[in-house]
Amino acid sequence: MNLVTIAIVLGLLAVVYGFVTSRQVLGAAAGSEKMQEIAAAIQEGAQAYLKRQYTTIAIVGVIVAVLVAVFLGPISAIGFVIGSILSGVAGFIGMNISVRANVRTAAAAQTGLQEGLTLAFRAGAITGMLVAGLALLAIAIFYYYLTELAGFTVGSDDRTVVDALVALAFGASLISIFARLGGGIFTKAADVGADLVGKVEAGIPEDDPRNPAVIADNVGDNVGDCAGMAADLFETYVVTVGATMVLTALLFGGVAKLEGLMALPLLIGGACIVTSIIGTYFVRLGAKQSIMGAMYKGFLVTAVLSIPAIFFVTQLALGDMNAPIQASDAGLIANVDVGMPLSEEGMASQVGGFTGMDLFWCSMLGLAITGLIIWITEYYTGTQFRPVRSIAKSSETGHGTNVIQGLAISMEATALPTLVIVTGIIIAYQLAGLIGIAYGATAMLALAGMVVALDAYGPVTDNAGGIAEMAGLDDTVRARTDALDAVGNTTKAVTKGYAIGSAGLAALVLFAAYTTDLAHFFPELDVDFSLENPYVIVGLLLGALLPYLFGSMGMTAVGRAAGDVVKDVRDQFANDPGIMLGTSKPNYARTVDLVTKAAIKEMIVPSLLPVLAPIVVYYVITAVAGQQNGFAALGALLLGVIVGGLFLALSMTSGGGAWDNAKKYIEDGNHGGKGSEAHKAAVTGDTVGDPYKDTAGPAVNPMIKITNIVALLLLAALAAG
Amino acid sequence: MNLVTIAIVLGLLAVVYGFVTSRQVLGAAAGSEKMQEIAAAIQEGAQAYLKRQYTTIAIVGVIVAVLVAVFLGPISAIGFVIGSILSGVAGFIGMNISVRANVRTAAAAQTGLQEGLTLAFRAGAITGMLVAGLALLAIAIFYYYLTELAGFTVGSDDRTVVDALVALAFGASLISIFARLGGGIFTKAADVGADLVGKVEAGIPEDDPRNPAVIADNVGDNVGDCAGMAADLFETYVVTVGATMVLTALLFGGVAKLEGLMALPLLIGGACIVTSIIGTYFVRLGAKQSIMGAMYKGFLVTAVLSIPAIFFVTQLALGDMNAPIQASDAGLIANVDVGMPLSEEGMASQVGGFTGMDLFWCSMLGLAITGLIIWITEYYTGTQFRPVRSIAKSSETGHGTNVIQGLAISMEATALPTLVIVTGIIIAYQLAGLIGIAYGATAMLALAGMVVALDAYGPVTDNAGGIAEMAGLDDTVRARTDALDAVGNTTKAVTKGYAIGSAGLAALVLFAAYTTDLAHFFPELDVDFSLENPYVIVGLLLGALLPYLFGSMGMTAVGRAAGDVVKDVRDQFANDPGIMLGTSKPNYARTVDLVTKAAIKEMIVPSLLPVLAPIVVYYVITAVAGQQNGFAALGALLLGVIVGGLFLALSMTSGGGAWDNAKKYIEDGNHGGKGSEAHKAAVTGDTVGDPYKDTAGPAVNPMIKITNIVALLLLAALAAG
Repeated sequence: MNLVTIAIVLGLLAVVYGFVTSRQVLGAAAGSEKMQEIAAAIQEGAQAYLKRQYTTIAIVGVIVAVLVAVFLGPISAIGFVIGSILSGVAGFIGMNISVRANVRTAAAAQTGLQEGLTLAFRAGAITGMLVAGLALLAIAIFYYYLTELAGFTVGSDDRTVVDALVALAFGASLISIFARLGGGIFTKAADVGADLVGKVEAGIPEDDPRNPAVIADNVGDNVGDCAGMAADLFETYVVTVGATMVLTALLFGGVAKLEGLMALPLLIGGACIVTSIIGTYFVRLGAKQSIMGAMYKGFLVTAVLSIPAIFFVTQLALGDMNAPIQASDAGLIANVDVGMPLSEEGMASQVGGFTGMDLFWCSMLGLAITGLIIWITEYYTGTQFRPVRSIAKSSETGHGTNVIQGLAISMEATALPTLVIVTGIIIAYQLAGLIGIAYGATAMLALAGMVVALDAYGPVTDNAGGIAEMAGLDDTVRARTDALDAVGNTTKAVTKGYAIGSAGLAALVLFAAYTTDLAHFFPELDVDFSLENPYVIVGLLLGALLPYLFGSMGMTAVGRAAGDVVKDVRDQFANDPGIMLGTSKPNYARTVDLVTKAAIKEMIVPSLLPVLAPIVVYYVITAVAGQQNGFAALGALLLGVIVGGLFLALSMTSGGGAWDNAKKYIEDGNHGGKGSEAHKAAVTGDTVGDPYKDTAGPAVNPMIKITNIVALLLLAALAAG
Repeated sequence: MNLVTIAIVLGLLAVVYGFVTSRQVLGAAAGSEKMQEIAAAIQEGAQAYLKRQYTTIAIVGVIVAVLVAVFLGPISAIGFVIGSILSGVAGFIGMNISVRANVRTAAAAQTGLQEGLTLAFRAGAITGMLVAGLALLAIAIFYYYLTELAGFTVGSDDRTVVDALVALAFGASLISIFARLGGGIFTKAADVGADLVGKVEAGIPEDDPRNPAVIADNVGDNVGDCAGMAADLFETYVVTVGATMVLTALLFGGVAKLEGLMALPLLIGGACIVTSIIGTYFVRLGAKQSIMGAMYKGFLVTAVLSIPAIFFVTQLALGDMNAPIQASDAGLIANVDVGMPLSEEGMASQVGGFTGMDLFWCSMLGLAITGLIIWITEYYTGTQFRPVRSIAKSSETGHGTNVIQGLAISMEATALPTLVIVTGIIIAYQLAGLIGIAYGATAMLALAGMVVALDAYGPVTDNAGGIAEMAGLDDTVRARTDALDAVGNTTKAVTKGYAIGSAGLAALVLFAAYTTDLAHFFPELDVDFSLENPYVIVGLLLGALLPYLFGSMGMTAVGRAAGDVVKDVRDQFANDPGIMLGTSKPNYARTVDLVTKAAIKEMIVPSLLPVLAPIVVYYVITAVAGQQNGFAALGALLLGVIVGGLFLALSMTSGGGAWDNAKKYIEDGNHGGKGSEAHKAAVTGDTVGDPYKDTAGPAVNPMIKITNIVALLLLAALAAG
């Protein structure tokens, strides 16, 4: 059996798991009529939003697909279309499961905590496995078609396969940035707007059915935290595994074990799908009834089982684990001849300097990085540790000190993940050069099925709580869904740290692909990527600026859209006093429709920033200082985006999570509890953290990669033109 | 007359101006006995703080001086001591003028707005001229001594002059980071603490004499905004002009016009002292009574007069403005031979590629950048423009939306300055290579006398307002000082934008000195600064992390110290109920003493971060991956600090200024005016902005440079060892 076929079978396994489990979830009791009515409203709103979002994206997508076809040929265009459609499908299915699981989780929570947990987690696991499975299938089947059926070869001068894989990643990225940002704006505009006008102005509790924005708020959980996140992780998966394969093809074109090397990233992904599926069955409450503990049990089982699984597939792909990957090969030499711009040391490590065992250790490094980032994120966002408690304590002296402390924590929270990533880069590079870094990133993403499962569980429980409140279920039910939801806050933060951490590594791989490609396409140009070249510094500065501008646009968009929500709700209250009295029903659909339009309108400009910036910078610098400085500045721009974006994204996602849980910690009765002055200050911090952690921060991840991919496509287009 | 002597004479002119003007200021009426009593308390507190700060710094300074003497020799140690003492002197004199001018400004404001403006601005101008004059004298006299009296030559293999100039800059930087951070923590801890317990808890107005922290708050304006800022700008001046001379010596050692080239930065500084002094006499209210307009008139006169002045001194130093700086020179060739690591283009531009005219245009570029940054900062912090108004408007919907919009604006505010700096780099480099960038930065700093004058005026008026309030002067007096103070908020923000913008350019010059030095000291090492070297990426990431960690520490320190103030004031209120009744006087000195101790304690660790980080990174990476990668990572760390720090500092200083003026805009009667819900939200934003703009943000500027200078010293020490 062909190695790629094995990966395809394992990918299909994920789809089968999703199918079977979704039947289980949908088969569960859906609660009372009132609950179903509320759930139907959420479902309707979410579908209406996604429909409009996808229609808008489709217009952009068709234009881009035509451009790709013109500049890079029809096969790349097909890759782009597959990537974009499957990215959308991942989000769409995830959302559809989520909006059906929410009411069933509320119903199950009537029975007990374990029942609620099982249902919500299974719903999350469906999304998780589908994201990982579809992503793996997209690359594996496309690759299989290109190499086995269409007869293109990797490692020759024919660039079809490489270009097609890059185009596939581009499709996934483009959809994902729209979905992340549009969903992020929707969810936070609805959330902030509903809170401002409901809690603050009207004095009614969260999730009160009299608030016209309450359905929009619940819709937001699904389109932002579920569909947006799923598209994002699908993209991260495709880009990381794709970039590893592209780099392999560029660096080792023609090496003896090339076939195995190309298939290995796919096999690692496949192996971890199996271990992730097994892990899901270990998510069960222990004697301590710790929900977080149950989650970790599942993750730990997956991680530990992945060690032998990855060893096995590496051996399967490469044979002798200790034999060096042969360097004495025409393809490799050919690449060297066109001026592969590696440093001498890098070259040494690439040329025959690594074995299968080295790649295995790099994969282990990826697992270790994942574990460490989860642990660090939990430290910074968990209620039992210093950071969150310091924010809670600073709330006692007011809104200002809460925000100051939150900002300080958000900046501090960048330190440990950066040290972990830096250490990872050094060790992986020492082991196996650039390709070692690529394997570290691939192994990180291989666990995506499990990580997404932990994350996608969040919006389900969040919604379940809302439904319990609106349907007037017993207080014990709400207590259970609240307990489930609190854990969701942490797992959501964890996924974002994981995604941005892996993005840092993946972007380095993409940058390596960029420089290698450059040497291939323009062997006559002596591009100076040295920090001593001022155009490199110009590129770094402009690159670092992009996440700031992007973040600013995202934050402002939330503010503007939330303002629209406030006006609409005020208007509904004014025109129909019966709403506040509870005698007449607010027009939920009108608010949903309004947020939908606002979010779609606001997502366009910031999303195009990372698409257009690389092209503009290349052409402007080329016009001013020649093509080789244009390429140098563009390359530096790619790294500048990473350097600037990594810190901004880490600080925003961790800080936001810490603010959120500091509020929860106070609501648990500390520092005066609910309704105290400290609580009011903590609510302010939480509001600030909302667009930080759910709009601007996470959208930096696809933004970093889209900038890199556009640069690769620009190179290919320039070479073709 | 020797060219350097001319610069020394012009520097002395600034000191004479300071002396004469301070006699005028001190000769003005000092107001009623009550006013003098309050002023004396502020004066006493400020002196006590500075005394303790300088004692602490002296301990660190002596240790470092000994280390410098051991590793780099006694002459460098003398340079270090001169730099550090004069940096302290600049701050000390500035503070001493400021604490005497405050009460006189309050007294003068009893007569009229113009009288108050004249007195406050003159006080600022004294500080401004002394900062620029002392900085110029420090370099010029030391350089004159070394080359004319001690007989060392520049451009030969003897490194004494270069090392001594770097050590001088190090002394200035080390003091400045302590002064900036210590003063910044003091001023904001006192401010935030006083507000929290006074305005919020006790419900008494700002500057109410019953608040025990009120004197500490006023002391803070002097030790932070005046002494800290003066030390910072002294440092920026010395480092920028010094780095230009060092780079000249390293790149053009032996060129025919070397003497003129070395003296030119000093002459540009001297010429602009004259134009700045002239400019101060144009700061007068026009028909429109616009205070900002009066300030700009003075600045504009200085800037316009600087054009012919710089042209004149350039011609004086280099002779024929259109003759190329000869490249056919042994020294230059020698440098090339040791492997001067310039790109081919850079080399071409250095070797005979520029004329005096080119340097003149680069200087003009520096003036243009200064003007543009002032204009951009005013746009982002002025009450008449969109950014501040958008924050004011968002205050209507609460604390959270105010902070969200403020953060969005702070991120957006990085874009235009970055584009200006990037464009400046490109044009300067096209004109005259790296040395062109150095001249751009030098011309920016040459205007420091005028810019500091505009800034140092701020704390004087701030104090004058406080004294007017505490002494119970007529409301018209307070109205006048408030009008003067509002302008001070903008000019303070402008100086910070200017300092950080120039730091970006100066740091590039220092980085060029680092790479040139590296090639000189370790000609056998082939250090790969290419972005393709993973250790370069590691360095960039670690460098970008430093400002985040540093900022986090600064913000937390303010929070902690402010908490101490709150406790002390609560304690005083509890133990003596007479304080609130106005029957007994609070113990102001106790609060001042407490903030002093807290600020000094908190400033140590963050200040040592940029000193130790380069050393640790070099040794760790060298241990892991060899010395050449150690140097590569260290170099990248230097640029990473700039890339990370520039954005953080720009966003913090602009955002803080915008929050502050959004509050003022509401207090002027917009969005409900004082006491409204919008005003409360705006107070929160202002509190958040305080440590942003006055502690963490501005301290990033010396931090960036200290990292670079430590790297240069490390190189020299390694070469000597």
